Amino acid sequence: MAVVGTGRMGADHVRRLTEVISGAHVAAVVDVDTGRAEAVAAGVEGCAAYADTAEALAAPGVDAVLVASPGPAHEAALLTAFEHDLPVLCEKPLTPDPASALRLLEAERRLGHRRVQVGFMRRYDREYLALKSLLDSGELGRPLLLHHRHRNAGAPPGFTDAMMINDSVAHEMDVTRWLLGQEITAVTVLRPRPSAHAPAGLSDPQFVVFETDGGAVADVEIFLTARYGYQVQAEAVCENGTARIGDGHGMLVSTAGRWGGTVTPGYLERFEDAYDRQVQAWVDATRRGEVTGPGIWDGYAVAAVSEAAVRAQREGVRVEVELVERPALQD
Amino acid sequence: MAVVGTGRMGADHVRRLTEVISGAHVAAVVDVDTGRAEAVAAGVEGCAAYADTAEALAAPGVDAVLVASPGPAHEAALLTAFEHDLPVLCEKPLTPDPASALRLLEAERRLGHRRVQVGFMRRYDREYLALKSLLDSGELGRPLLLHHRHRNAGAPPGFTDAMMINDSVAHEMDVTRWLLGQEITAVTVLRPRPSAHAPAGLSDPQFVVFETDGGAVADVEIFLTARYGYQVQAEAVCENGTARIGDGHGMLVSTAGRWGGTVTPGYLERFEDAYDRQVQAWVDATRRGEVTGPGIWDGYAVAAVSEAAVRAQREGVRVEVELVERPALQD
Amino acid sequence: MAVVGTGRMGADHVRRLTEVISGAHVAAVVDVDTGRAEAVAAGVEGCAAYADTAEALAAPGVDAVLVASPGPAHEAALLTAFEHDLPVLCEKPLTPDPASALRLLEAERRLGHRRVQVGFMRRYDREYLALKSLLDSGELGRPLLLHHRHRNAGAPPGFTDAMMINDSVAHEMDVTRWLLGQEITAVTVLRPRPSAHAPAGLSDPQFVVFETDGGAVADVEIFLTARYGYQVQAEAVCENGTARIGDGHGMLVSTAGRWGGTVTPGYLERFEDAYDRQVQAWVDATRRGEVTGPGIWDGYAVAAVSEAAVRAQREGVRVEVELVERPALQD
Amino acid sequence: MAVVGTGRMGADHVRRLTEVISGAHVAAVVDVDTGRAEAVAAGVEGCAAYADTAEALAAPGVDAVLVASPGPAHEAALLTAFEHDLPVLCEKPLTPDPASALRLLEAERRLGHRRVQVGFMRRYDREYLALKSLLDSGELGRPLLLHHRHRNAGAPPGFTDAMMINDSVAHEMDVTRWLLGQEITAVTVLRPRPSAHAPAGLSDPQFVVFETDGGAVADVEIFLTARYGYQVQAEAVCENGTARIGDGHGMLVSTAGRWGGTVTPGYLERFEDAYDRQVQAWVDATRRGEVTGPGIWDGYAVAAVSEAAVRAQREGVRVEVELVERPALQD
Repeated sequence: MAVVGTGRMGADHVRRLTEVISGAHVAAVVDVDTGRAEAVAAGVEGCAAYADTAEALAAPGVDAVLVASPGPAHEAALLTAFEHDLPVLCEKPLTPDPASALRLLEAERRLGHRRVQVGFMRRYDREYLALKSLLDSGELGRPLLLHHRHRNAGAPPGFTDAMMINDSVAHEMDVTRWLLGQEITAVTVLRPRPSAHAPAGLSDPQFVVFETDGGAVADVEIFLTARYGYQVQAEAVCENGTARIGDGHGMLVSTAGRWGGTVTPGYLERFEDAYDRQVQAWVDATRRGEVTGPGIWDGYAVAAVSEAAVRAQREGVRVEVELVERPALQD
Repeated sequence: MAVVGTGRMGADHVRRLTEVISGAHVAAVVDVDTGRAEAVAAGVEGCAAYADTAEALAAPGVDAVLVASPGPAHEAALLTAFEHDLPVLCEKPLTPDPASALRLLEAERRLGHRRVQVGFMRRYDREYLALKSLLDSGELGRPLLLHHRHRNAGAPPGFTDAMMINDSVAHEMDVTRWLLGQEITAVTVLRPRPSAHAPAGLSDPQFVVFETDGGAVADVEIFLTARYGYQVQAEAVCENGTARIGDGHGMLVSTAGRWGGTVTPGYLERFEDAYDRQVQAWVDATRRGEVTGPGIWDGYAVAAVSEAAVRAQREGVRVEVELVERPALQD
Repeated sequence: MAVVGTGRMGADHVRRLTEVISGAHVAAVVDVDTGRAEAVAAGVEGCAAYADTAEALAAPGVDAVLVASPGPAHEAALLTAFEHDLPVLCEKPLTPDPASALRLLEAERRLGHRRVQVGFMRRYDREYLALKSLLDSGELGRPLLLHHRHRNAGAPPGFTDAMMINDSVAHEMDVTRWLLGQEITAVTVLRPRPSAHAPAGLSDPQFVVFETDGGAVADVEIFLTARYGYQVQAEAVCENGTARIGDGHGMLVSTAGRWGGTVTPGYLERFEDAYDRQVQAWVDATRRGEVTGPGIWDGYAVAAVSEAAVRAQREGVRVEVELVERPALQD
Repeated sequence: MAVVGTGRMGADHVRRLTEVISGAHVAAVVDVDTGRAEAVAAGVEGCAAYADTAEALAAPGVDAVLVASPGPAHEAALLTAFEHDLPVLCEKPLTPDPASALRLLEAERRLGHRRVQVGFMRRYDREYLALKSLLDSGELGRPLLLHHRHRNAGAPPGFTDAMMINDSVAHEMDVTRWLLGQEITAVTVLRPRPSAHAPAGLSDPQFVVFETDGGAVADVEIFLTARYGYQVQAEAVCENGTARIGDGHGMLVSTAGRWGGTVTPGYLERFEDAYDRQVQAWVDATRRGEVTGPGIWDGYAVAAVSEAAVRAQREGVRVEVELVERPALQD
């Protein structure tokens, strides 16, 4: 595939497609800054650098496009992708204003089938997925209110009041729509007296209230200079209970007189990530010609303790464990 | 690479290497049950099935071996891998007894370099890694006690008292050794009156106490028929504080008058998994010829709400949002 | 003292003053329903029932007044108490409207000293006190936003939209003012589509937004038919961190990269309530001529186990405990 | 009543009986250190100081005795109380050894009725009571294991290994017996290498294992120099689930695939303590001739905000709040 834009976000996607994702190969990268594109391409086997998107999308091995260029460049990149009928993953924002988004809507309609996925990645977060799944199950009844908290440790240089809406609260716009399956019909923004830590000219924090066509109300605390870390939380208040995510506890549900979370049913759910990381670490080490992780000594020591423990279990006594001396190779 | 053993664990590793892991290709699978091997091989492009390990390890494209056959078969498989000097990831247990483990230790010594990683996958779990990293930092001082809880929803059929030690508590043996960097020197096992839900002949739960050569004490509750789910917890009691994992909260540390956890510093730490899952989902859908996830309509709706919100912010009033009619293609 | 009003709240205060509070004696109760007043007075030694407040407040042994009559009757009761210059604890609301409250303000001014405490009892809740104390310490910097949640299991019969404000949200008005030390300057109320469980005619839940003269914004979710229980939560968002109460965890503070709570420094803080309850239970049992709680048998059994444990500790062995037969008296 | 012993614990009980507990009056205090007894008596109206227990127990107004003298003096004090047939609350330990406890058991048998409550105050802690009540309900099935943690910030000067058992672990002996309704039949003590912060000569922490006549196993971590605070935790592992107290979360129960706690059903359960503290604070201030807490100004401000909020609610607009100037008296 091709990756359009090789800035921070684009370069990270190239790394992801190459080192993390299974089943993808980056054959072309595009950037108006050709030096940057070439530097990224140099790190990927069989990847060429381009200055022109149309040329890159026509290159061999390009069956899909990831667009990570700045927002104002998205419309042109997507129209080029449509000419080649390529599937696109387009970083948010789709475009900087509704008029250009409408033009893309019309272009995709002419194409006759959907080709674009927009990078609202919160829809792929485990906790948001759990909340969505719970709401969709109907178990808690209809959602009435959503409370969102969106806190950053600090504001990037040059951040403006409008960027708080367009770049930050945009996430809550999407998840409000997605979680509820409703469109937002009205917006109110309150601006408390800014924090002493807010950069000059930025009214931080702000408090945004959405109303939806389903009669729900959603509020968003957006706070860029929260200082203590990054925290994204959401709470759905429903007819039969409430559910909250983002506390670092998994999803907490309050219903029928109890609050709490779920216990994983088995080891695969609990340790699935550990299995994946173990095998990826082994594959990566093997490709580097290295051996890492627990070795034969560890297998031996556990076998020796197991043997002693089975005797302790059977005989009801304390059993001492004897190990051979640890060979130098196993340190 | 080759995968030896295509039972539940082996087949899952083939799936992982093929669909999840980046940079690996399964070229050979081996099983004495050739039908099973062939069924697994059929699902992987360019993968052949073998009944004989030596033959499989000599096949083209085999630079590494994952051993997932039953424990008693591990020694032979590893010795074969040593003949080809191949790196091995060997599922636990390394071997069923210390004597055979010692023979492998000697074989690897003759080889002259480490070739084997044993599948103690808890060392790759995020929470165990966080605990290990905290203990190694010295921030909490020397660890004095470890409390382990290991609860399964139910015991597999045919599980015996000895298997509770060899298959279940073996994990706690390894993590005790790894977390402390100490060897276990003595074992005691207590058997309370079994639960009414324990299968006939199984003394479940049991309580195991380890002493180590560093003077620490570790206790393990092993409970196979805990019924309510799978729970693996560990608490380290140190000179300056305690740290606990496995409550579904991340790691909780108590020190200097406070208990609690960390807040992620930024969005990459918080949403790294969501980014990975988003791109993997897009790659997978693209390979299936499908488009899923949020589309242009979602990008448009967020742009329209953003435009209204920026006006609400600037003018201090409630602003209504107007959307065009949703096109059929975008449903 | 005298208690004016012997309905549910008044009768509960008489019980509290008689059975829980140290240093108070209820000498007079007043109610227009004389039967109800007499029934309550009958349960308290040396307590007389009155139909007329003026008469009750002139009775011997009345040095203070607790007013628990309905809100519209408060003004008259307080003016009578002012004539006797008695200290008053007046249940909330002080009066049903600002005009009558202003008349009381003027009456107290003429008296020349404060005589009235209003029953905003949340100011005496441990968690609210902890939050107030944290905000006042300045450790988290200036508070910028307050998020309140106020959920009841169900609405009392006959509850109206106005009562949601006057009876329920009144608590959040007071704690917002008290926590911030600021007055509220503007109010907005949003009404999402009501829950299917809301009684006919009640728009439940509602979402209320306060602005204050210090530039803070506070929001209140008021939800009377939350069904799953009673939940009152508050979160203060400050310049250097956030603090949340009401989750059933004590106060959780997020600051400087960490979230969490405090560990009690010693056993008195942890078990102070248990000591109080133990002694109150013993005093109550003694007054009833009964002996309850752990007895000599328990003291003996612990002494015997202690003796065995000290030997086990000294000798490093398992020691069995021998008890005499338990006497019938000790069952 | 009389209080025997006016050291730290005894003086605190005199304060509790006088200022906190309803329905008790301390008429006599006894101490061999007569100066200490007189100092304590001086602070309580109608209380006399004695050097001799027999004389004190015969004094007018003494219907019950609280014994808070050192353990070795308990036997004599209780026998004197038995002569007057007085109910006794005796601080733990009942006596320092099983032989003297047996003599008291026999003395009470001769008396023919129970007269003694031993001060195992954990049985009156809300969380232990909740755990006991859950276990007794049978909902979780039979308890199989108990895990206790008992951590102090630091060891008192002169603390010995034996005192760790007799003074500290004694609490866990009692609650193990009480929670399970079983007697302890065997004890094992393990001593890990001591913390660097343990006082010279103290082997701290230690790990104690109890076996009971019901076939349960209970373990106790006792750690006196845990430094970070005071933490007492207990976890019951039962056939159908586990329950844990002491994390500062209330009781957490894991059962049927979920973990969590209960939500209070109503405001009385949630704010009962706040109501009690409010009225006690008012009674105490009244007795001191003071007025504290929220006053008429607060009642007025809430009435004014309520009036505005009801209009905001009805008319769907933002409503400003107008307050009169705050009078000096109300500051």
